[in-house]
Formats: sequence, structure tokens, C-alpha cells
Amino acid sequence: MVQNMDIVIKDATIVTADAKGRVLKDHSIAVEDGRIVEIGERVKGEADHVIDGRGRLVMPGFVNAHTHLSMTLLRGVADDLPLMTWLNDHIWPIEANLNEDHIRAGADLGIAEMIRSGTTCFNDMYWHMETVAESVKKSGIRAALSTPLLDVMGPDQRGKLLREGEALIKRLRGHERITPFLGPHAPYTCSEELLLAVKDLHDKYGVGVHIHVSETKEEVENLKKDKGMRPFEYLEGIGFLHPGVVAAHSVWVSEVEMGIMKERGVKVAHNPVSNMKIAAGVAPVPEYLRRGIAVGLGTDGAASNNSLDMFEDLKIAALLHKSATGNPEAVPAEAALEMATIGGARALGLDGEIGSIEVGKKADIIMVDRKKPHLTPLTNPVSHLVYAARGGDVSHTIVDGRILMEEGRLATLDEEKVMAEAVRQTEDLLAKSGTSDRLF
Amino acid sequence: MVQNMDIVIKDATIVTADAKGRVLKDHSIAVEDGRIVEIGERVKGEADHVIDGRGRLVMPGFVNAHTHLSMTLLRGVADDLPLMTWLNDHIWPIEANLNEDHIRAGADLGIAEMIRSGTTCFNDMYWHMETVAESVKKSGIRAALSTPLLDVMGPDQRGKLLREGEALIKRLRGHERITPFLGPHAPYTCSEELLLAVKDLHDKYGVGVHIHVSETKEEVENLKKDKGMRPFEYLEGIGFLHPGVVAAHSVWVSEVEMGIMKERGVKVAHNPVSNMKIAAGVAPVPEYLRRGIAVGLGTDGAASNNSLDMFEDLKIAALLHKSATGNPEAVPAEAALEMATIGGARALGLDGEIGSIEVGKKADIIMVDRKKPHLTPLTNPVSHLVYAARGGDVSHTIVDGRILMEEGRLATLDEEKVMAEAVRQTEDLLAKSGTSDRLF
Repeated sequence: MVQNMDIVIKDATIVTADAKGRVLKDHSIAVEDGRIVEIGERVKGEADHVIDGRGRLVMPGFVNAHTHLSMTLLRGVADDLPLMTWLNDHIWPIEANLNEDHIRAGADLGIAEMIRSGTTCFNDMYWHMETVAESVKKSGIRAALSTPLLDVMGPDQRGKLLREGEALIKRLRGHERITPFLGPHAPYTCSEELLLAVKDLHDKYGVGVHIHVSETKEEVENLKKDKGMRPFEYLEGIGFLHPGVVAAHSVWVSEVEMGIMKERGVKVAHNPVSNMKIAAGVAPVPEYLRRGIAVGLGTDGAASNNSLDMFEDLKIAALLHKSATGNPEAVPAEAALEMATIGGARALGLDGEIGSIEVGKKADIIMVDRKKPHLTPLTNPVSHLVYAARGGDVSHTIVDGRILMEEGRLATLDEEKVMAEAVRQTEDLLAKSGTSDRLF
Repeated sequence: MVQNMDIVIKDATIVTADAKGRVLKDHSIAVEDGRIVEIGERVKGEADHVIDGRGRLVMPGFVNAHTHLSMTLLRGVADDLPLMTWLNDHIWPIEANLNEDHIRAGADLGIAEMIRSGTTCFNDMYWHMETVAESVKKSGIRAALSTPLLDVMGPDQRGKLLREGEALIKRLRGHERITPFLGPHAPYTCSEELLLAVKDLHDKYGVGVHIHVSETKEEVENLKKDKGMRPFEYLEGIGFLHPGVVAAHSVWVSEVEMGIMKERGVKVAHNPVSNMKIAAGVAPVPEYLRRGIAVGLGTDGAASNNSLDMFEDLKIAALLHKSATGNPEAVPAEAALEMATIGGARALGLDGEIGSIEVGKKADIIMVDRKKPHLTPLTNPVSHLVYAARGGDVSHTIVDGRILMEEGRLATLDEEKVMAEAVRQTEDLLAKSGTSDRLF
């Protein structure tokens, strides 16, 4: 009996991002029930959907390891400012007015942008996460979702947010494409009580923990004054760290702290564009990689990037560390691509399921059209993906074996409607914030 | 009598890059005989060609202030290596086999890529420049062209290249879209005799001078050992500097040298991506801008970038200097956009003709389709162009009042043929160099 596959991608150049970093020429991939079931020069059997891979580069979908998705509505409202001015005078006053309709519009817009530019999974921390979960379910993308936990306003805030965080875990766990996370915002916005409560919830539910750590030098200096320790030393001291912790940024980290991170299996979400734009500093990524600390790549929110295009962060990650260390061999193309795919999967604890193109893994796959002047001639496919390709070159995006974009057409979202609604909700949000003049 | 315009762009958002940095909403532009003749809310008269500007951002075409165009054939052949290894073991052995057919194929490929990503003028230094000039004439793009001058092999080489350089000036000057330049390669590859001969030719023909200066620290240290002076001090000492000099890179420059550059009116071509990739260092661009030294933006060759997409260098220029100085207000979006347009025009001495959208200037104009998720909502058009737009978003490219790309279709180049010929010539070049294995 001839087997009937759901999707076959035929005769493509495949950058697998597997442990050997294999790049396969003129190979095919068969997908069935959401998983990759065969990779070979020829694939047996028929398929419902055959995609011609000739002239295309196939790679695992990007894992965006750190973002605040619905901030797409705030793209470009304020740039080129010191972090605290940007937050205090621009972002926070607007965010105070965010409601579910804004969040839904921003999430749909961000998901459309991510599917277009080849991201198949993202790690989000933001408000109204139930609403974002609806957008994730509807669109077919994969996500790790957490609602921010903080208690700068005291125990009532802490209790309320912890209850919401726990409720989110209960409602979302078990979903095929959603991994609930706990989202303690940062050591400087969370009390020790809150951090310990997060550890308890982690132990109870086995979920991951998404936290900002050591983004700016000031924040580290303040914690040293307050606690007499650097952030990872403090987190280690209270027993907060474990392999489920994804520490976004991790820019200002000492040798001792890196030792702690390695020992505890802490993961890093590196955000080179956001760090550069805010002038936060340069994370010691070559040193993380040398020590075998898992590093994923993220865009951060669209208000501090201002794009969710992982191709940009991919190229800039490869460039930034060469420039910062003076070593042109730092973070070579292969290492950058690994961070953006399997590295992000490792950060989210999903590397058994996604992050590379291998038999048995979920079919989270993107295809890049290389029949373009800027991707010609084809010498090194990995070099082309890292240094020459752009988000707009993605022709197909497949998540969980389902085609979310085919030849540049979105299959699950009505893009015109999504954009119109995003404009409408941004107008509403800015009007509610008394800053309608920010729209052009 | 109703005037008949060649092109009218109607109802667009126009980022002018004029002296006031004006951004015009719902404005139209009329083009006649290659020049912008009117800008207003309404434009009088009929036009042969009306372009709907709604949903589009209009800006001056990019001026790529430093590249080696035909290196597009070497895109991705070698990456992530120290500069001298990259040159000695990879690039130079291949370049030794370059013939006119290779150069033509690489130039056509690079021009297709540039037109697609919104570059309307480029400053090129490479071999077989007569052939590149043919590609420029045929394609309709604008260029400043120079053949490299160096005499590391002695007076015979010097004499031969100087004769060729002078012949190129005589043949190309007066062409509507080509500005011949002199291309002394660098202070470390040119003797004092050669540099003085270049100065004489500049005085004789009034042409500009395109030279690499202070790209790497090693090169500065070597010149200090050799001449007892830093590069710009040395060039000043021999009377080489004047306002026609475009100094590519200018990374390692002292305060004293910046004083010299300002006094002599020397221009800078800044190449942030190439500098980062080669780990050459970070040029003191905020300081150049503070002193009023003209700075243009360049991609450098595609082998050290690996793209000719000025949108990337634009964003990365805005990011890099924030990161390198720790100041999030360094090189704001407006300053980066200025570098990429009117700054480049100033560097080439063409700012009276191109680089901004103003009545009387040449119609070198591009249009960006903003009806895309990653350019929604529209808050700040300049921010969107710098931080969110990509080369693939360009819908129209107009040079000298002629439409070279319309709705993503190239008008003057047969793109399929250009790409096929580039592959063929790369195969031939690599075979001649004994490194056919570099093609995937």
C-alpha cells in the first residue's frame, strides 16, 4: 500500500540545523500528522500537497526567544531615547490604557508579520495573554506565553497576578502549539516572595520561567546596592534558578554568574537589535557559546527594534559580536543560525520537538526563494541565509505540518483586515492615552 | 496650455531629506525631463505616467557611497575570517582571474539588486571599469566610477594604471549619469609619487578621488612605523587632501586628523556592516556629524557584507553607534537617513543634483509599499524607513526621471538572464581559480 503524506517538499536545498549542521542538496521532506516522517533524495508515496523546492532554501522556522508581541501597535511611536525616558514618558503611559481589543489587534498584526518573515514559534510576555492565546490558536503559529508577574505595587498586585498566571497555566497546558510559561518580569520589579512563589509554581506545574535579567548596567548596580549581589548571584542565593529559566538579555554578567548559569542550566534569550537600539550594552554571547550555555535569539518588542524580522537579528547577531570583540571569527554564520533555530528551541525546552529539520520532529519549516539577485550565485546556503536573505524572501511557512503561508499568501489570517484593525486599535489606544498626534 | 509632465506621483507620504527634513503628507511630485519640477498637495497638468502614491512612502533613492560592485559574484565564497586570511587565501587568488565577462555579469547582477532595494546611485572602485560603465549606461542607474590605482609592483604598474585611470576620465566625463572618479586604493598600496600624480589629475580634470583610509588598526600602525605619521596626517603632509576626496571607512582617526578632514573638506564613506563583519572597528561617526564632516553610507562589496541592500546599512548605522557609544540618542533615525541619501550625494559632490526630493533636483526617487504588517501602523515615516523597512519593500525605483522598476518589475534589465549569466560567470571564474568546489 502506498502511503499518503500530507505535504512533500521536493528537490530543495535543506539547511537542517541538526547536530552535525548538515546541508542537503536536492533532498525532499515528507510531512505527516504534523511531523517530519522522511528526509531523502527521493521520498516514497504520494502526497496531498507537493511543494516544488527547486530554487529554494529550506530551513527550520525561526524561534523568536523573546518578544512582547502586541507592542507592534507602538512601532515607531518613540525612538532614539534613553531607556527610562522612553518607558516613563512614552511607553508606560500608553500601555496603561491597553485593553483586550488592542492586544488582539497587536497580536494578529505581529503574528502576520512573523509568519511572513519565517518565525514559527515565539516566546511572549505581555498583558491579556488569554487574548494572545486566541490569536495563536486561530493563526496556527506556535508560542510560549506568559503574563508578566511583578509586585512593585505590593502584595495585592502580587496575589492577583500570581492567580492569573496560575490560571493561564491551567487553561493553556496541553494545547498542541502553546506552552504556558511563568513571566516574573525582572529581579528589580519582583520581590523575593514573588520570585519564590514563581519557583513553587514551576515545581508544581513543571512550566518554564521567562524573566528579564541584567539588561542594563544601571539595573545591576541598583541590585548590588539593594541586595549586595549581582542579579544571577541573588537569584541563585534564593534558589530561583533551574534549567527552565529563560533569562532575556543577560547583558551585564560576571564570570562567576556565567558559572552559576552553566551549573543551573539557565538559558539566555539574546536580543541584539533591541540591546543596540537602547544602548544597553553587548551580551557576552561568544562566551556563553564557549561555555555551552544555551542561547536563543529574540527580537524583543516591536517598539524597541522596530521589526519582528528574525533575519535581521540573525545577521546583526553575527555582526555585533565580531565588532564588539574585534574577532572576525566570533559567532560565525552557523552559530548565528543555530541560535535563531535550535538554540531558541533549547531555550524554551522544546528542542525535542522543534528547532531543526529531522525525522520525528514537528514540521515547523520555512522556505526561502533564492531566485533573486541578492541570493545569487549560490555558494554557501548558510552564509546566504545569515548574511544576504531578508524576511521578505520567505515564500512558505509551515507550522505543525500546516501551511500558514504559501507563495507569499497567508492562509489563516485575513491580512487586509488585520492591518486595518491594527490601525483602528492604535488610533483608539493613542486617543485614550491623549497622544493621537503620534499617528502620522 | 496644459503642461505635459513625464511622471506624476500622486498623494504620497514624502520623506524629502531636504535641509529641514520635511515629511509631506498626501503630496504629489511632478517630473519632467529627468527633474523634479513641482511638489505640492496638487500638481497641475497632465502626465504620461501617473503613479498612485497612496499607501506608499516616497524618499530620495539611496546613494551607496562605497562599493566594489562586481564582487557580487564572490558573495558567500568566504566569510567569518580575519581580513588578511580572507584576502590572501580567498579573495585575491580568485580576483587574479577576473575578466571582462565576469565583471559585466557581476555588475549587472549588482545593479539589479540595487534597483530592487532602492539604490539609485553608487560609488564604485573595481577592475574593468569601462565594462561597468556599459552596464550603468544600459541599466539606467547613476554611478561614480573609478578604476583602482596602486603601485605595490612598482613604477610600471603605476604608469599603466594612471594611463588607464586618465583614459577612463576622458571617456566618461560628460555622461549624464556617470561621474568619473580617480581611485587610488589606499595610502598603504600607493606610493607618494602615485598619490601626487592623482592630485595632479584631480587638478587637471576636476574629478573626485575615491580612496580607502584607516579601515583597520594594523594599517594605521604600519603607516606610523613607515612614515612616522597617521594616514590623514601623512596625506595632509604631501598636499593630497581637498574637498573632492571621499575616504572610505575612516575608522581609526585621531582628533587631530578629524581637524584636518574638516579643514580640507574631506568626505567620509561609512560602511558599518562591512566594518562589523571584518571586525575592523567602529568609525567615529557621531563625532564626524558633530563636526560637520559630510558622511555618506556604503555597503562595501557584496563579499564583505553580503548584501547591497542599503536599508540594512541604514538600520545598522543607526544601531551601531548607539551601541558603541552607550548613547541611545546617537545617530537618530533622521541622521541615518540623511547619511544614506543627501550625505552620500555630498560625499560624491552631487548634492546640487541628487540626494533629496526638491524642485530642480534630478528625479532619483524610490517608493516603498507600506501596506504590509511590518510597516503598520504608520506613526513616524522616518522611523519606519530606518528601523522597519527592508529592501524588498521597494515598489518603484526612478533614476533621472526614468522608471527602472515599477511594481517590482525591472524595466531595463532581463533579471532571469542576468542571474543565469551571473551563475555561469561565477562557475567560470571559480573554475579558472581552481576552486569550483566553492559553488554549492
